[in-house]
Amino acid sequence: MGKVKVIGATTSLFCTRIEWALKLKGVEYEYIKEDLRNKSPLLLKYNPVHKKVPVLVHDDKAIPESLVILEYIDETWKEYPLLPQDPYERAMVRFWARFADDKRWSSSSFTQCVFGAWGACRAEGEEKEKAIQSAKESLALIENQINGKKFFGGEQIGFLDLVIGWMCRWLEVMEKVGGMKLLDPQRFPVLYEWAQNFMEVPVISECMPPREYLVNYFQASLSYLSSLSANKQ
Amino acid sequence: MGKVKVIGATTSLFCTRIEWALKLKGVEYEYIKEDLRNKSPLLLKYNPVHKKVPVLVHDDKAIPESLVILEYIDETWKEYPLLPQDPYERAMVRFWARFADDKRWSSSSFTQCVFGAWGACRAEGEEKEKAIQSAKESLALIENQINGKKFFGGEQIGFLDLVIGWMCRWLEVMEKVGGMKLLDPQRFPVLYEWAQNFMEVPVISECMPPREYLVNYFQASLSYLSSLSANKQ
Repeated sequence: MGKVKVIGATTSLFCTRIEWALKLKGVEYEYIKEDLRNKSPLLLKYNPVHKKVPVLVHDDKAIPESLVILEYIDETWKEYPLLPQDPYERAMVRFWARFADDKRWSSSSFTQCVFGAWGACRAEGEEKEKAIQSAKESLALIENQINGKKFFGGEQIGFLDLVIGWMCRWLEVMEKVGGMKLLDPQRFPVLYEWAQNFMEVPVISECMPPREYLVNYFQASLSYLSSLSANKQ
Repeated sequence: MGKVKVIGATTSLFCTRIEWALKLKGVEYEYIKEDLRNKSPLLLKYNPVHKKVPVLVHDDKAIPESLVILEYIDETWKEYPLLPQDPYERAMVRFWARFADDKRWSSSSFTQCVFGAWGACRAEGEEKEKAIQSAKESLALIENQINGKKFFGGEQIGFLDLVIGWMCRWLEVMEKVGGMKLLDPQRFPVLYEWAQNFMEVPVISECMPPREYLVNYFQASLSYLSSLSANKQ
């Protein structure tokens, strides 16, 4: 099987998906916690281009970029396949995974950051409303992909569930920090039910960072950003 | 084999890679030229989320996003494999393909657009120098991946060659429009030689849009953008 390490950070929603995939496939790994404010020589060695987590290290071969890592995991360990077999279904999963990731960390549009949720935390007034609206439009598009199934992957958790799974904790945290509701069970009953089903799987919920830890982290980030912008004025 | 259509546009460097892949695999297809200033109902039907070219339509199933399309083509038609077999090598190809695409159309940074080349066309003075510098840094990283081989794919053209192949024409066009040199044979001898090898393959060069057509198009775009910014002042 070879030695497997994951370089990650608790607050990064890109890292949890890697741990979920390895756990679902029964692959043992060592988790190396990275301090993102003071990046380690190990991270800089293994991801010199982007200098970002997560990085998967398998027998000293390093693979950065979470979507690339997920494909590598699925191709290397065949138990519990994450992508469907049919090429068209695989293409659709890859399309929506990229959509979800682009919408999530789109640095080109402040309001769309983390599906609009982080933008909505930071913005006020009309800007905040716009970000909330944008988040809800993206959630509606994503919800459509469940299409009567229990998970995006069908009867069991698949690739897209892992890519979108951060919502079940981070979105709730953003809602609390930003004082708003995004994943409203009335407006998105199917996605809301999916989130319940997803969190009921022990491998998934055990790997989620504690809610209060993330709330404190994002509240502190928000205060810091506010102080920066207050100093500018 | 089923009916295959490509919805594309001559000026889009994302589309040519799809035609190359189909031609290398011997897949016949119908090319549907899209007018990007007046998008057709067909495009809006087949790519309602992004409304962008290229779209591959295979037996009425539509697949948007060029990297997703390339994977679909490689999985559907097995002749002339584009991705390597080894999972780690596949991961590295996917990593550099995403790097190349992100660097190319990074809307977050104007100067980095098209590997910095389009940014360098539009900018002046210090900004232009910065864009040129950024382009050269990216080219150096990409050049390292050839690693003594004839093509990125080895002895024959592979996935990454198709993703980066636009350089052999578009970069040259940008250099002419912007009055600068980026792919300098002295500075990048390996990448320069790769470009010669790539363009010598008939399937590749036959599909490249005519140089003068692109020069006229990008010169007109530049004039239009200049007039817009002159009107603002």
